[in-house]
Amino acid sequence: MIHMLKYGMVGGGPGAFIGEAHRKAIHMDGTAVLAAGCFSRTPEKTKAQGELLGISSDRCYASYSEMAEKEAAREDGIDFVVVVTPNNTHYEICKAFLEAGIHVACDKPLVTESGQAEELKAIADEKGLLFMVTYTYVGHVTSKFIRDLIAKGEIETVRTVMAEYPQGWLYDEHDNGGKQGAWRCDPAQSGKVNCLGDLGTHVENAVATMTGLKVKRVLAKMDVVVPGRILDDNDQILVEYDNGATGVNWTSQFAIGCDNSLRVRIYGSRGTILWFQERCEEVTLIREDGISQIIRRGNGVISPEAAKYGRLPAGHTEGWLESMGNLYDNYAECVKAKKEGTFRPDMIDYPTIEEGIAGLKYVEACLESNEKGNVWVEV
Amino acid sequence: MIHMLKYGMVGGGPGAFIGEAHRKAIHMDGTAVLAAGCFSRTPEKTKAQGELLGISSDRCYASYSEMAEKEAAREDGIDFVVVVTPNNTHYEICKAFLEAGIHVACDKPLVTESGQAEELKAIADEKGLLFMVTYTYVGHVTSKFIRDLIAKGEIETVRTVMAEYPQGWLYDEHDNGGKQGAWRCDPAQSGKVNCLGDLGTHVENAVATMTGLKVKRVLAKMDVVVPGRILDDNDQILVEYDNGATGVNWTSQFAIGCDNSLRVRIYGSRGTILWFQERCEEVTLIREDGISQIIRRGNGVISPEAAKYGRLPAGHTEGWLESMGNLYDNYAECVKAKKEGTFRPDMIDYPTIEEGIAGLKYVEACLESNEKGNVWVEV
Amino acid sequence: MIHMLKYGMVGGGPGAFIGEAHRKAIHMDGTAVLAAGCFSRTPEKTKAQGELLGISSDRCYASYSEMAEKEAAREDGIDFVVVVTPNNTHYEICKAFLEAGIHVACDKPLVTESGQAEELKAIADEKGLLFMVTYTYVGHVTSKFIRDLIAKGEIETVRTVMAEYPQGWLYDEHDNGGKQGAWRCDPAQSGKVNCLGDLGTHVENAVATMTGLKVKRVLAKMDVVVPGRILDDNDQILVEYDNGATGVNWTSQFAIGCDNSLRVRIYGSRGTILWFQERCEEVTLIREDGISQIIRRGNGVISPEAAKYGRLPAGHTEGWLESMGNLYDNYAECVKAKKEGTFRPDMIDYPTIEEGIAGLKYVEACLESNEKGNVWVEV
Amino acid sequence: MIHMLKYGMVGGGPGAFIGEAHRKAIHMDGTAVLAAGCFSRTPEKTKAQGELLGISSDRCYASYSEMAEKEAAREDGIDFVVVVTPNNTHYEICKAFLEAGIHVACDKPLVTESGQAEELKAIADEKGLLFMVTYTYVGHVTSKFIRDLIAKGEIETVRTVMAEYPQGWLYDEHDNGGKQGAWRCDPAQSGKVNCLGDLGTHVENAVATMTGLKVKRVLAKMDVVVPGRILDDNDQILVEYDNGATGVNWTSQFAIGCDNSLRVRIYGSRGTILWFQERCEEVTLIREDGISQIIRRGNGVISPEAAKYGRLPAGHTEGWLESMGNLYDNYAECVKAKKEGTFRPDMIDYPTIEEGIAGLKYVEACLESNEKGNVWVEV
Repeated sequence: MIHMLKYGMVGGGPGAFIGEAHRKAIHMDGTAVLAAGCFSRTPEKTKAQGELLGISSDRCYASYSEMAEKEAAREDGIDFVVVVTPNNTHYEICKAFLEAGIHVACDKPLVTESGQAEELKAIADEKGLLFMVTYTYVGHVTSKFIRDLIAKGEIETVRTVMAEYPQGWLYDEHDNGGKQGAWRCDPAQSGKVNCLGDLGTHVENAVATMTGLKVKRVLAKMDVVVPGRILDDNDQILVEYDNGATGVNWTSQFAIGCDNSLRVRIYGSRGTILWFQERCEEVTLIREDGISQIIRRGNGVISPEAAKYGRLPAGHTEGWLESMGNLYDNYAECVKAKKEGTFRPDMIDYPTIEEGIAGLKYVEACLESNEKGNVWVEV
Repeated sequence: MIHMLKYGMVGGGPGAFIGEAHRKAIHMDGTAVLAAGCFSRTPEKTKAQGELLGISSDRCYASYSEMAEKEAAREDGIDFVVVVTPNNTHYEICKAFLEAGIHVACDKPLVTESGQAEELKAIADEKGLLFMVTYTYVGHVTSKFIRDLIAKGEIETVRTVMAEYPQGWLYDEHDNGGKQGAWRCDPAQSGKVNCLGDLGTHVENAVATMTGLKVKRVLAKMDVVVPGRILDDNDQILVEYDNGATGVNWTSQFAIGCDNSLRVRIYGSRGTILWFQERCEEVTLIREDGISQIIRRGNGVISPEAAKYGRLPAGHTEGWLESMGNLYDNYAECVKAKKEGTFRPDMIDYPTIEEGIAGLKYVEACLESNEKGNVWVEV
Repeated sequence: MIHMLKYGMVGGGPGAFIGEAHRKAIHMDGTAVLAAGCFSRTPEKTKAQGELLGISSDRCYASYSEMAEKEAAREDGIDFVVVVTPNNTHYEICKAFLEAGIHVACDKPLVTESGQAEELKAIADEKGLLFMVTYTYVGHVTSKFIRDLIAKGEIETVRTVMAEYPQGWLYDEHDNGGKQGAWRCDPAQSGKVNCLGDLGTHVENAVATMTGLKVKRVLAKMDVVVPGRILDDNDQILVEYDNGATGVNWTSQFAIGCDNSLRVRIYGSRGTILWFQERCEEVTLIREDGISQIIRRGNGVISPEAAKYGRLPAGHTEGWLESMGNLYDNYAECVKAKKEGTFRPDMIDYPTIEEGIAGLKYVEACLESNEKGNVWVEV
Repeated sequence: MIHMLKYGMVGGGPGAFIGEAHRKAIHMDGTAVLAAGCFSRTPEKTKAQGELLGISSDRCYASYSEMAEKEAAREDGIDFVVVVTPNNTHYEICKAFLEAGIHVACDKPLVTESGQAEELKAIADEKGLLFMVTYTYVGHVTSKFIRDLIAKGEIETVRTVMAEYPQGWLYDEHDNGGKQGAWRCDPAQSGKVNCLGDLGTHVENAVATMTGLKVKRVLAKMDVVVPGRILDDNDQILVEYDNGATGVNWTSQFAIGCDNSLRVRIYGSRGTILWFQERCEEVTLIREDGISQIIRRGNGVISPEAAKYGRLPAGHTEGWLESMGNLYDNYAECVKAKKEGTFRPDMIDYPTIEEGIAGLKYVEACLESNEKGNVWVEV
């Protein structure tokens, strides 16, 4: 099993949705084998989870720092670590593994302040380590296809972008969404933002990745709407991009009927592109003739750079796990190349720490704009 | 033919889309008979158009003022006038007919300044005349059903409204949309606004009618995007309503692929309502269970107050003309009641001059906000 | 008003949906003026309806035969008659008007036996009269566009056609659909078929018109499913066309959730065309690249021969009445040309009596197939 | 890793889509570990594939019979085998493993004659072995939800079922679909049927599973349409079910634009259920009120028996692999229970060999009907 990478996980204990999801995404393609973990702050829970996952007990660690240290020391130590803990713990954990010389894949939002993120980036750069931020939605074949379409000038100049990511699960003032909702809504764990950090960073990243544009300034209205909430649960933000294009970014957690409704609509001077995460097997492209072309994963027109990430024939639907899996497939390929000394920067086709930093700066600018009474703030 | 009302038209000459459309909407149901007209500023064109439409030549007038005067003097004079000229002429024309004692139906946007509109309202009120502003889209059975749903508390408190009306026909810098586009883009004919007046007033009116909310303040970004344009062609506006709800209103004329894409999405504390003009035979209602209920015109659940406007069984699609026809059906019923002395204010189920005024104030507040650099302005 | 045609109507009394619908379709465009009628078998009802419709009382006739005779004798007599009575009366009525030398527009299904229809055709041919059968759905701009696409070889050879027209309004064994359902389900009024005559003839006609193919043979399963019904309410029919293509035609009256769901899916050797009556503003065309192209009325790609029937800009939805209106617009143009001596057969773009005969022969072949135990029967 | 089952695979060599897909489905959830294989008829290919997959070389077998024998003899032998070879080899392979006492999961269509299948069933029954036939599409949460809805009487009596599974990839007479198409179209490998075996068995199984109905008789038209083909590529079949309901089953391989378009529409006496594989995250349920309820995986109304198979929150799209994974999750649970002596027949929630037999009998009846000139044949 020499070809197979080994990875460790921090977070992802019993009942943690996102850790389990990362594992499935990695294991689906046999991308890497889980070899070590610190799944919980409670050592007993880590042990129990490790046993269920088939990890030898000596690699179930009581603390992430012990894990970083010991795995770094092992000859058969993990090749990369996956960090899927609450946001406010990412910084310390990532730092520990980077300092131990281990590649890192960390869930978004990366950390709670962009300064921390830049610090992490500096360490990674210095040590030549790969750092992925798992913005799931840019992993889709269709997301990558849109990026390619726009890069090739298919719709010419982007003029305005209407992007949104409404969810509905926290609409009820009598129900804060269980464990998942509790930490998101708690300033102690989430920092100064809830909805904008959880969803808004995906919006910023999806638009940036697809269009190649960067946010220049924002005018943000961040509201706390559902009675009893402390942090923002509805954000409506005017955006200007570096090419002069405008846009609106909307995120919400009380939009009843919206499950996970990340939607990006890009209007260019020669065409329009529509993408909806819940219909992620297809892209709508409209050229100047006004005909709505529904292009599906599997159609021959999909660029090979995007199409190669598909696993199944057209119509054999792929979804969220495959998208996340695509991120890990490319990341693992890069990690492997690092090990074998064949790595080249242009191999990278995953969201890096720079995208993580961009997300944080976007959030910080929005917070400032909102605090100042909805004025324009440069990012 | 004693039961049949007679109407006159100002505007609607050869090639004028909107005048022709109003006539079809009225004639479809046999609501009223066209009896007089001043279809063009050029008397010859008025004559020619009148002949085509079967109007006797003595009722084809060279000027609207002559028409108002002479029709008012006839025993068999018109019961109401339909004004479908460019916006900047509405004020004088409407005033002439009101002063002559003739009921008025006028296209939107009503006039170019809210002060003029209030003046018209004063005259109409004083003379007891009925004044309709033809916001087409609130005439749909489904629009009326949404109004009833929300009024009955079906989704409880409205929390945020995402409303938009993008079109794509003016996307091309080498083509200003022919005659229809030319006057809209020309400040001399359109005044200070183009897109916001043409489309944004529909958005404001549709939301106000459906939700019963009034806009309290706006923060407007009005952009001139397509090279060569002078007036706004893309407007992204943050809105606050009188109940504290927020919203975004977006209108555009360069959104390729959007024909006439008025869309209103209303998120309440106990449900969501979605409506899209291009699928105007249906409403999506989502209650707390998260199930998307697609309710179609013709379903038994539609309130009788809304359902009565349908002409055909479910699935026999009705559209834009029927919606406009619904406005005229109710308006004509009120005019008839006025003639017969049976009118009661609660018979009114069409958009009145007050809604026209609200639209103008909305536009004026947006203009002020934009000129001041995107700040909040009270409406 | 010399340019305006005059028409009469047989049927279409108070509460009759289809007569009212025909009138709206004709009046919407000012195609012709209603000048005479025999709206009911009860003379009083005819009088009352005539008065409501503004017809002079001497042209409200007690019988259709009197109407045919007297209108033919008047100098200002009707130019054509619209027959919208129950099916089993069409033959006698149409014959009377044809013999009186008056052009006829008759609702479908034309008559109850193809022999009668051929007799009517012979009279019409001999007298040089125009006979339209009002198959509404082929009047849509999109239906005509599909016909043009296929005629031009856009999808090359048609291989199979899946066509269906399910409705749901008669699903309930405790409710036979009121007045509309009662006569359809009554053998005394409907003859030997219900569902297949009412809906199946539309299916046959839509496919024939769009594809240019004729049905060669059928294998029909016609079932009486809802308890208490006497005539077919669900028909599933295997079809072979004259070019060797196959197909399935399905019609039903108990398909809950289907309002008026005529749907035609045409699979050719180089492409596919999808059309759904309830979304009649659009056509889906798929070429060999597999991309679903959604083409909307108003798109530039629509052939001028089809596009000319549109009234409103794209996105200003047209529907059932406009489709019916398109039939009458062309029919009236032909009638006018007959009057003016400028008629040419290639002006005809409406469904003629030949299409009515084809529908009857289709029904008769299906009945025979079903009676013989679901065997192939040549049409 | 004591809790983890071990499985072997026959077939699934390099480039084989379905074998790779089965592996991903199993590994995604960590359901079982691949421990042995005979991936190809060419031992070198098996070795190479085994190495890639991390299997020790002594468990890469030159023949399936050797594999069955040796694995059965090992103490740490495989718990079940997955058979993903061409159809005409299934019988011998499955038999070998059953006789060796190993549980079997076999791709569909099970074998080429129902007699063989019954033989396999007899062996499995006698030895108490579990036999799954991997009809993927009944594994979806939504498929299971439909089954539960109908079982609970939600739409009362099923009256007619319109089911279809068109694909378009073999439309071109100049391209027989590469390796995947070649064996399907080759009588030597596929037997007497192509399209009906590949797709029609899924249709039969999906309807049977969802509705609980069994096919009583069929009238089948099986056509060879694309020039150069030998076996059926378009099948249009009239069906009668054991409760008297009717239906149409359509399968095609030349329906351009259809990727993998399994669609089931079930019309009952009190409601309708619509399901489309390419939108497998949702079900449409229409009750007597005519409202189309779109129910999504994740909605609270989904029965717990179905909902438990979901991995991700609503809107985090699951697809084909998850559906296949659901089959294996339940199958592995049953295999584990067999090992631990806790198995109960009511634990089975996967398609068994009985469903495989039903599929074969359906195909055989269709073949007979078609050969006899499209007559009714009892299943």
